[in-house]
Amino acid sequence: MLACRDGFRTIWADPDGRILIIDQRKLPHDYTVVELETWRDGERAIADMLVRGAPLIGATAAWSLHLAAAAGGRREFERAAPALAESRPTAVNLRWAVERMQAAAGALDGEALAAALADEAENICDEDVDISLGIGRHGLEIIRQLAEKKRAANQSGPVNVLTHCNAGALATLNYGTATAPVYLAHEEGIPVHVWVDETRPRNQGSQLTAYELAHNGVPHTLIVDNAGGHIMQHGMVDLVITGTDRTARSGDVANKIGTYLKALAAADNNVPFYVALPSTSIDWTIDDGVRDIPIEERNPAEVTDVYGVSGGHRTTVTTTGEGTPAANYAFDVTPARYVTGLITERGLCEASTAGLRGLFPEQAER
Amino acid sequence: MLACRDGFRTIWADPDGRILIIDQRKLPHDYTVVELETWRDGERAIADMLVRGAPLIGATAAWSLHLAAAAGGRREFERAAPALAESRPTAVNLRWAVERMQAAAGALDGEALAAALADEAENICDEDVDISLGIGRHGLEIIRQLAEKKRAANQSGPVNVLTHCNAGALATLNYGTATAPVYLAHEEGIPVHVWVDETRPRNQGSQLTAYELAHNGVPHTLIVDNAGGHIMQHGMVDLVITGTDRTARSGDVANKIGTYLKALAAADNNVPFYVALPSTSIDWTIDDGVRDIPIEERNPAEVTDVYGVSGGHRTTVTTTGEGTPAANYAFDVTPARYVTGLITERGLCEASTAGLRGLFPEQAER
Repeated sequence: MLACRDGFRTIWADPDGRILIIDQRKLPHDYTVVELETWRDGERAIADMLVRGAPLIGATAAWSLHLAAAAGGRREFERAAPALAESRPTAVNLRWAVERMQAAAGALDGEALAAALADEAENICDEDVDISLGIGRHGLEIIRQLAEKKRAANQSGPVNVLTHCNAGALATLNYGTATAPVYLAHEEGIPVHVWVDETRPRNQGSQLTAYELAHNGVPHTLIVDNAGGHIMQHGMVDLVITGTDRTARSGDVANKIGTYLKALAAADNNVPFYVALPSTSIDWTIDDGVRDIPIEERNPAEVTDVYGVSGGHRTTVTTTGEGTPAANYAFDVTPARYVTGLITERGLCEASTAGLRGLFPEQAER
Repeated sequence: MLACRDGFRTIWADPDGRILIIDQRKLPHDYTVVELETWRDGERAIADMLVRGAPLIGATAAWSLHLAAAAGGRREFERAAPALAESRPTAVNLRWAVERMQAAAGALDGEALAAALADEAENICDEDVDISLGIGRHGLEIIRQLAEKKRAANQSGPVNVLTHCNAGALATLNYGTATAPVYLAHEEGIPVHVWVDETRPRNQGSQLTAYELAHNGVPHTLIVDNAGGHIMQHGMVDLVITGTDRTARSGDVANKIGTYLKALAAADNNVPFYVALPSTSIDWTIDDGVRDIPIEERNPAEVTDVYGVSGGHRTTVTTTGEGTPAANYAFDVTPARYVTGLITERGLCEASTAGLRGLFPEQAER
């Protein structure tokens, strides 16, 4: 993987127009680039989690719609759009990306349609990098203030940031959402250290976040998801930043299962808990996130089986005895009252309808 | 593994006086009985976690002291006692068991010493089963009341109990601490269902608790440690019961890392959070558990490497990329204010000095 500042991208069109992604399921043990040949490949890449992270699955849906139009014109595009919008249930970006591609499609067909959709997919990807950098610049100020506070209090050591799951470069096009402030702080020479939650069951922390932090030279330490409360109790965390798959207009935040537990621990220990998000992750139609954001249930085998390497070979082990029943809730919702603030590409705001409407006044009529 | 009601034991002397344990590291994939030939075997079994669980490591230390005396008389006994007391740092039962064996040793030596210590180890084990059954009977009343409340409210389904780690039969001599109320409820025909936290990094939930619940016919579902908050938010948990490795006299509870996060979620969702403990797990010398209970840091390889089976063979995979730094805090402390109550062999009490002294007035002068 390339470092963020060197122009890393998670999905891209090569000079021959082939759409390429990284099979993230094989990381950190194998870095494999895969071509999406058809929109069905894109749908599978989203559903099977070769790509994941709300912004990246939005971008993958966008490129897949271009592929649909290139292969089968308007008719295939119209088949693909609803299927891609439903390829995963929780992230709202998917729906947003599909709607945006539909708008770009207008009444076009044939080559003109395919070309317009390629342009729009490219735009979505470029804008995503800009959004990450915007989030990064606003979040950087939080880290800078914490670093100054530590210096003023004669506390040594870096600013310790805890993050859950991967809301990193690998979840977006580049720079990430939760990680963007960290990368920019590191680029500026502010000492930062990241506590990386393993993030069971799919281990996006140990297998993706730790991997990309290492490739970007950011000091980090892996911990199990259970450890966050203990290290917050003992003053070892200055700041929590996570991403989100969908944020209700009330500020309730859906994110990877276990985020809510970290928010509770942060509140109990007066650790600021921020959520970094592109505005595309805001669902302006939902008020009560706990009640109304649909939570995906995935295959129980993700809980019982663990991917790794043994003797140099990639392999999956079953940890449980035969026939152990398991349930696999993929996300949870953190009520807005536990969120210190939201970091968006337009700036920081309170996790509330008023806070969000203040930054996004064009949504005020909703 | 035998079912609890059929007289299962986790450590025992066979008719030839050999001291036998189960190598719990190999469960659930292999059920292997191992002989402790010397007290050093016992020390290693504790440190390397062939045996674990506060009551069982106390019993293992007791039998190991008998082995020391049988092999090397008074002198070896006196070498073994402090080493065994320090074979793991967090559980207070270890110190308690060693002190009790020292009292039983009196001024004896030779065969008389070994015989007295065998008797006392046997007593400790028998008493532990009685303690578990005592805890079970008191905890059973909580489950019975919840079942009645559900029935009165016309709610269908079992009483849903969430537990973390293994405070089960495998952590004690038999019946467990946190599991004893569940086993007794199940034996009485009260419908119960257990949410089993996986319990990273050592997976005592998925590999021990799920295993013993299956062998005892108790319905259960494995979840990742991250999921507890979500299922409590959605009314899927009626009761949390965990064990403890050491409870301060103030009611602060040290238990497996991650327990504190579940206590926070229980408090946030009005789910009763009980801790089941033998009185031997109470540390009457400590007030502030968060500050003063020592928290063991174990090998980071426990975080990066996962044990399971692949293609019928037991194997361990490394989940992380090469060189990922990890930290491994084994326990955390739940402040008493988040504990609904303590379930001891003498009955229930508030998690407070007053509550504990009420049940254990002989400790009132401390």
